[in-house]
Amino acid sequence: MSRFGDATAVERVADGRYKVELDQTFGFAEALNGGYLMAVLARAAVDASPHEHPVSTAANFLRVAKAGPAEVLVESRKTGRTAAMSRVTLVQGGEPVVDALITTGTLESDLEPHWTGEAPPAMPSPEECSTFASGKDDRGFADNVEMLFDPASMGWLDGRPSGRLEARAWLRVPDYENDGYALALAVDALPPVVLNVGAKGWAPTVELTWHMRAVPRPGRLAVHGGGRLVAGGWFDEEVEVWDSAGRLVAQSRQLARVGRGLPG
Amino acid sequence: MSRFGDATAVERVADGRYKVELDQTFGFAEALNGGYLMAVLARAAVDASPHEHPVSTAANFLRVAKAGPAEVLVESRKTGRTAAMSRVTLVQGGEPVVDALITTGTLESDLEPHWTGEAPPAMPSPEECSTFASGKDDRGFADNVEMLFDPASMGWLDGRPSGRLEARAWLRVPDYENDGYALALAVDALPPVVLNVGAKGWAPTVELTWHMRAVPRPGRLAVHGGGRLVAGGWFDEEVEVWDSAGRLVAQSRQLARVGRGLPG
Repeated sequence: MSRFGDATAVERVADGRYKVELDQTFGFAEALNGGYLMAVLARAAVDASPHEHPVSTAANFLRVAKAGPAEVLVESRKTGRTAAMSRVTLVQGGEPVVDALITTGTLESDLEPHWTGEAPPAMPSPEECSTFASGKDDRGFADNVEMLFDPASMGWLDGRPSGRLEARAWLRVPDYENDGYALALAVDALPPVVLNVGAKGWAPTVELTWHMRAVPRPGRLAVHGGGRLVAGGWFDEEVEVWDSAGRLVAQSRQLARVGRGLPG
Repeated sequence: MSRFGDATAVERVADGRYKVELDQTFGFAEALNGGYLMAVLARAAVDASPHEHPVSTAANFLRVAKAGPAEVLVESRKTGRTAAMSRVTLVQGGEPVVDALITTGTLESDLEPHWTGEAPPAMPSPEECSTFASGKDDRGFADNVEMLFDPASMGWLDGRPSGRLEARAWLRVPDYENDGYALALAVDALPPVVLNVGAKGWAPTVELTWHMRAVPRPGRLAVHGGGRLVAGGWFDEEVEVWDSAGRLVAQSRQLARVGRGLPG
């Protein structure tokens, strides 16, 4: 099993109760990655459901999760032929850390879209992209999640933000076959899009909803981040994930708080 | 008070427990409107919170809500200076009908955006739009929520769908001042965008997340609906709501099931 597979494993200890061990290398200095936590929650929800895929996940990030032991509670709310719905909570130190609503369903693996809107804007090939490996703080995450960033969206690193809410990268989870859990990771793996309009530092996610739209094919995932509005210290970030066959496989929006550097 | 104000009133009967009377005229033949139900949930969440506005709402629609008495349960999960988070459930006949995660916060009423992406595509003036009043089935809703539809997005009514996932209208709640609850209604008031690619009939919402981005000014709201993908019987619908001052005041995405008329 890969590092990601191990780090997101859930052990069923009772009906709707799972033991997990949160892996420090899926975090940064400030906190464990939200996409990683959602992958853990989705594994528990799917285990407790008759369906195969985490079709819809909405998560409220209440507190900072720490590396080490934690529990996932899954409460089934409705089980249907097409979809099953549950309330899922990550608990640590006796407190809820992430609350989620997860709907599971079963997507056909050879599903062809009936209708798709425009493709996302073009992105440079992986060879033209860069790892932009930064300091040792996030070395663990960079080892676990191979990301190649579009240089046009990384000017903020050198004090030249693009002036648009954007971030783009190719993403691959080493030694791991693309699936819904890798998509959970992908929708929250980019640097905050607000860095490109002058904000600095960590931008804590308050709420993130993502939908799995198809079973991803093998290969690198194209991850496109954008946003619409920064106001009053809040911003939205939208992410679309496209697979190697050019199919839209996941879409997300999060509402987050702006870090330092901007008014409000 | 207006019909909408009366129909969304919540009566606190205990800590985190509210009595409501769901109003049949906010429904269609199939079900009560989801935006109406979210407005009811948001009122209870704000009542139980120190903050003024329903900044983020994610809802799972489990069962069809019926007109008549119901209860709203609000469970506080974290109360902070900037935001308070809760789990909120609409209960009817002893069963959960809608599960929601609601984050409340307080938005300044004179908030100016620090950064906004492109404005939405132009829409014809209200005078160039039409009510397209249909049969008596939805007369109640049409009386409660004044909507003027962009004719270019209503071709499906005459068997000429535009071929794009789209729906657009001006919206006004009669005798009611625009606020966060009116926005909850606005993000789920359009005809399903999937009607414009050939689907027919009701398209039940599975999950809807919406964010309140600013306190709306008085006047008609411009409601723009789009979408990205129809596949395997699922589609997404995105709505942006702009106020009379040209500010983005709400944004939503829902995942829903396609009605009749399309494969999958």
